Amino acid sequence: MAEESSHEIDMLLGRMKSATSPLREILRELHSRLSGNHAGTVADYIPELATANPNSFGLALCTADGQIVEVGDCGTQFTIQSVSKPFMFGLAIEDHGVDHVLTKVGVEPTGEAFNAIVLDEVSNRPYNPMVNAGAIATADLIQGKDYPERVKRMVDLFSKFCGRDVFVDNSVFMSERLTGHRNRAMAHLMRNFGMMGERFEEALELYFQQCSILVTAHDLAIMGATLANGGVNPITKTRALQSENVKYLLSIMMTCGMYDFAGEWAFRVGIPAKSGVAGGIVAVVPGVLGIGLYSPRLDAKGNSVRGVEACKELSQRFGLHAFESHFSGEKLMDLFALKRGR
Amino acid sequence: MAEESSHEIDMLLGRMKSATSPLREILRELHSRLSGNHAGTVADYIPELATANPNSFGLALCTADGQIVEVGDCGTQFTIQSVSKPFMFGLAIEDHGVDHVLTKVGVEPTGEAFNAIVLDEVSNRPYNPMVNAGAIATADLIQGKDYPERVKRMVDLFSKFCGRDVFVDNSVFMSERLTGHRNRAMAHLMRNFGMMGERFEEALELYFQQCSILVTAHDLAIMGATLANGGVNPITKTRALQSENVKYLLSIMMTCGMYDFAGEWAFRVGIPAKSGVAGGIVAVVPGVLGIGLYSPRLDAKGNSVRGVEACKELSQRFGLHAFESHFSGEKLMDLFALKRGR
Amino acid sequence: MAEESSHEIDMLLGRMKSATSPLREILRELHSRLSGNHAGTVADYIPELATANPNSFGLALCTADGQIVEVGDCGTQFTIQSVSKPFMFGLAIEDHGVDHVLTKVGVEPTGEAFNAIVLDEVSNRPYNPMVNAGAIATADLIQGKDYPERVKRMVDLFSKFCGRDVFVDNSVFMSERLTGHRNRAMAHLMRNFGMMGERFEEALELYFQQCSILVTAHDLAIMGATLANGGVNPITKTRALQSENVKYLLSIMMTCGMYDFAGEWAFRVGIPAKSGVAGGIVAVVPGVLGIGLYSPRLDAKGNSVRGVEACKELSQRFGLHAFESHFSGEKLMDLFALKRGR
Amino acid sequence: MAEESSHEIDMLLGRMKSATSPLREILRELHSRLSGNHAGTVADYIPELATANPNSFGLALCTADGQIVEVGDCGTQFTIQSVSKPFMFGLAIEDHGVDHVLTKVGVEPTGEAFNAIVLDEVSNRPYNPMVNAGAIATADLIQGKDYPERVKRMVDLFSKFCGRDVFVDNSVFMSERLTGHRNRAMAHLMRNFGMMGERFEEALELYFQQCSILVTAHDLAIMGATLANGGVNPITKTRALQSENVKYLLSIMMTCGMYDFAGEWAFRVGIPAKSGVAGGIVAVVPGVLGIGLYSPRLDAKGNSVRGVEACKELSQRFGLHAFESHFSGEKLMDLFALKRGR
Repeated sequence: MAEESSHEIDMLLGRMKSATSPLREILRELHSRLSGNHAGTVADYIPELATANPNSFGLALCTADGQIVEVGDCGTQFTIQSVSKPFMFGLAIEDHGVDHVLTKVGVEPTGEAFNAIVLDEVSNRPYNPMVNAGAIATADLIQGKDYPERVKRMVDLFSKFCGRDVFVDNSVFMSERLTGHRNRAMAHLMRNFGMMGERFEEALELYFQQCSILVTAHDLAIMGATLANGGVNPITKTRALQSENVKYLLSIMMTCGMYDFAGEWAFRVGIPAKSGVAGGIVAVVPGVLGIGLYSPRLDAKGNSVRGVEACKELSQRFGLHAFESHFSGEKLMDLFALKRGR
Repeated sequence: MAEESSHEIDMLLGRMKSATSPLREILRELHSRLSGNHAGTVADYIPELATANPNSFGLALCTADGQIVEVGDCGTQFTIQSVSKPFMFGLAIEDHGVDHVLTKVGVEPTGEAFNAIVLDEVSNRPYNPMVNAGAIATADLIQGKDYPERVKRMVDLFSKFCGRDVFVDNSVFMSERLTGHRNRAMAHLMRNFGMMGERFEEALELYFQQCSILVTAHDLAIMGATLANGGVNPITKTRALQSENVKYLLSIMMTCGMYDFAGEWAFRVGIPAKSGVAGGIVAVVPGVLGIGLYSPRLDAKGNSVRGVEACKELSQRFGLHAFESHFSGEKLMDLFALKRGR
Repeated sequence: MAEESSHEIDMLLGRMKSATSPLREILRELHSRLSGNHAGTVADYIPELATANPNSFGLALCTADGQIVEVGDCGTQFTIQSVSKPFMFGLAIEDHGVDHVLTKVGVEPTGEAFNAIVLDEVSNRPYNPMVNAGAIATADLIQGKDYPERVKRMVDLFSKFCGRDVFVDNSVFMSERLTGHRNRAMAHLMRNFGMMGERFEEALELYFQQCSILVTAHDLAIMGATLANGGVNPITKTRALQSENVKYLLSIMMTCGMYDFAGEWAFRVGIPAKSGVAGGIVAVVPGVLGIGLYSPRLDAKGNSVRGVEACKELSQRFGLHAFESHFSGEKLMDLFALKRGR
Repeated sequence: MAEESSHEIDMLLGRMKSATSPLREILRELHSRLSGNHAGTVADYIPELATANPNSFGLALCTADGQIVEVGDCGTQFTIQSVSKPFMFGLAIEDHGVDHVLTKVGVEPTGEAFNAIVLDEVSNRPYNPMVNAGAIATADLIQGKDYPERVKRMVDLFSKFCGRDVFVDNSVFMSERLTGHRNRAMAHLMRNFGMMGERFEEALELYFQQCSILVTAHDLAIMGATLANGGVNPITKTRALQSENVKYLLSIMMTCGMYDFAGEWAFRVGIPAKSGVAGGIVAVVPGVLGIGLYSPRLDAKGNSVRGVEACKELSQRFGLHAFESHFSGEKLMDLFALKRGR
């Protein structure tokens, strides 16, 4: 049985080599089938999100050595939203080192909703960088001589991961800051506890900006592949993150990435991933590939319905669970042979 | 840098081949250094645990192909306690399939203490099989035509994982059931919610029995190696768990294995592991090796102080984090060559 | 306006003097009107409760000097259930003094359901004697050389308050103990925390017994009048509780008596009261009268629907709120004249 | 025994009639004795509070018919802080009626700290008007054609209760709004939930203003006496609150007035009261008198140490508990005779 499964992985990678590959057919079939799933609702807490085409659906794969296969609406732009969180956490770690960062934001799953008003008062920090409070505290850590430089460093980060210049959607940004009472409440509360310093409102602004970066499913696949490739963008060959820090992003995505579905995600799907409220998901099979997904209809936990389904199927079909016993053995040698670009 | 680190792993495995290996020297040095750490206190909620020699310290490694290196008190017997939990969870999955098991016990980290009186009332189940409530609900799932057969199946499970016949320490068992008011409270509460059926008190008995199984650090290393080897005991070549179920045990150990230190463990150490209140820890580097640890002094979270330190050092030194980017590349081929026994 | 309202109270008392009084007419009208309210459901967690006639409705008033007016099913027997709690709390205070009792059970409202699994771990005691945990801890405090004597003292207590020999309904008692997993869980948990001693299971038995005492709406009115009369049963002239301890029962009924409706009850109705799951309510207008109610259909919070409505109406109509400004002044002199029996 | 206690009350009132009364001596002795208690610490979260003389101690009694006895620093000004809360709640009730107000703020004790970030999400309102969130939601309800008029109505309210023009301490006000991150967080959160409307920041300003009103222990005694007298200031004979609304203030003070000591306060002291962080306490014996206290050293729960002690002693010595059985009988007739001013 182990042989069969790793055989599948082997074939998966093999198929990506060819533009007319059976893999493309497999993804097309998956895309076509999931397109029939109209469950879920598009986020509408700001008008900009509500205008998304609910039927949009893009699915892109990018290997750790830069081969890309994509199906559907992979060029449609949407705001990155919470998918930005692990990447900003990585930048904070590069700015301060992991030990300092962990004094400001924890790495414990909460079992609470992403916007829960809960803080780890014992450790005097938000629970983890994937909940809004933790993401705001993380934004507070981004360095720069002034606010414009901090914004620039944030934009540069996502540009490096995407391999192209990215931009903030200003109308989303303005809407977020106008209506973000809950996030503003969290920021004041963290200021109250001394979890953030005097410039906490700047951190909040930066957070609203980062959430408003425009990306595509294509971009997300490359961002994931960059993590799969140890921090080097496999398309541009530019390093976006130090190799030794990649594991921190993947760990936190594994345990806290999918809101309060995180535990079951780690258990059943086993692929480090992060979703956003605009309908994007980035998923990473370490050493192998990145997956980029876009479909704006969300389930009750705030994850893209089709995105979750696609990840589940890909994980089961190709044995992509991080702790899959099948994912090993001599068949993997072919797999690693694919990753020459790393 | 990637080359250096995977070089380390390569050497690690290489060193295990030789009885006079540098690896043994490295472990001896680690053992000797950590022996100087007298922090923590021996559990004493039952008299039997309090009699443990607080200075005992055993550290054993067993590769996925059955090579063993051990230092210190690796033959000292102690009760397995909570280290039993993932293994019983695996048996429940084999008895019922993962879907049914997940209707009875969740897989979400709680952020609460292991003995917290919290249940997931929305899903009508305990949060996960690593908290006591979840472990009792898991024991309830173990099949058998009567109680003695259920006990026998539990003992057989651990015997297969250890590769020898294991036994229950009866005086610990008797103490546990006499003083286990909290666990008894949990069982009544779950019965009240309909989370367990009529024979819930039998499940409680079975749970107290499983916790009282006597093991050694040597045993724990082999148990870990059995998981590292896809469910087949690398010493006896006997299958203890179906290959496709191994990932479930490793996932739950990764996210919930180390009590409320679990989040930081997954983040920093990145090795699926489970600790017990008698001072044992089993840790698994999937595909590579199992680690067995015994040192009865516990930190405030209930984990063996020296055990935690040893895992941290081994993880950092040899790049054993599950999401370590360095843990890959052509050097791993030698590693896999070691696993002929699989 | 103050004059009018105290005039009403004046009339209320005046009317009770006469068997053909307008007061009886007022109560008859109230009873008749509320009989049309069929909202709520009869408790059915044990079969014995489910057999109650859902249309039963008794409403009895007994003044602090022993005059009784009653309408409807005031002779129908039902189990006292949680209405027993404040009285047992009073007995515990008489056995140990209020200071000692408060080391074992708190007096803080919880805002949680009556059967919530929450304990005040800071103070190491249940939150208050009106939640089940607190009632069990209270039962543990009842003195006696052995269990039969403790049961006898409990039965004697209720006999004194009712002014007749009361009895336990044995089939209810047996059902309660068979199905009381939640209460048993609480008892084990409190034993675990050291909140109760070795004989905690005896306390649980005693608690199940006290809940199974059979009473009528007539009895409850006299029990209330006994508290209104400073602890002396106005019918038998027997002291059931020391005068200085009455205030403790009334306080706890005011703040914690009506489950999680307690806050709004104290605010709007303002009459110390306690309800039970069989449909009984006892309410006390200190110095004036006791009210006994029976109607088994319960609202979502576990209080008798008609009982709550009747208390609300009586409070508003006659200005019975404990902090009613109208409830004072020279008109009250007539009121006190009525209370010669005190 | 009842006779003795009500005799005490009788004497208490009797003594107030005479300037050279034994009552004054009793209060002097109490004041002198409690002056020796230096426990607790002065609040210092804003610099203005920290400058208070920690030894200041004023104790004033004002009967419902306007007789005043005072000892110590009864003319020292301090900010009213949370003592303002029940009074503003009363104004909100007068502006909107109790039913509407209860849709915006609950009346349930929380068991949490006064500044807890908890909201009753089921009812979509803060738990009660004595916690900060509830007080801010209450301030939001104060009517007025614009902000200055709303402030004026607030100042007028306290002026009527005190019987003199009161003023806002502007430096305290400025400090509160500068540092009030926690309250600002609560306001944003309530805005987020739709618990407050667009002008929520104005409500926050108004709340900071009301907390900064300057009063004395003398003022607090008169404010309490106004409530004891059914809403009419016994000195100026001006109505400050409708009679039928007084019970709502007294109820909420009884159950929620003393932070998380509230339950034990209702149980043991039994006098509706409200404390503030500057060291003030107002307490009300309905129909009898108001008590004003000032001593800035606070206990861990935020209540004035000496203030709490003084209330406890007065309650026990004179039987002032709201549910005291002794507090009744013919001796009270003399008491009511005193209240001619009502």
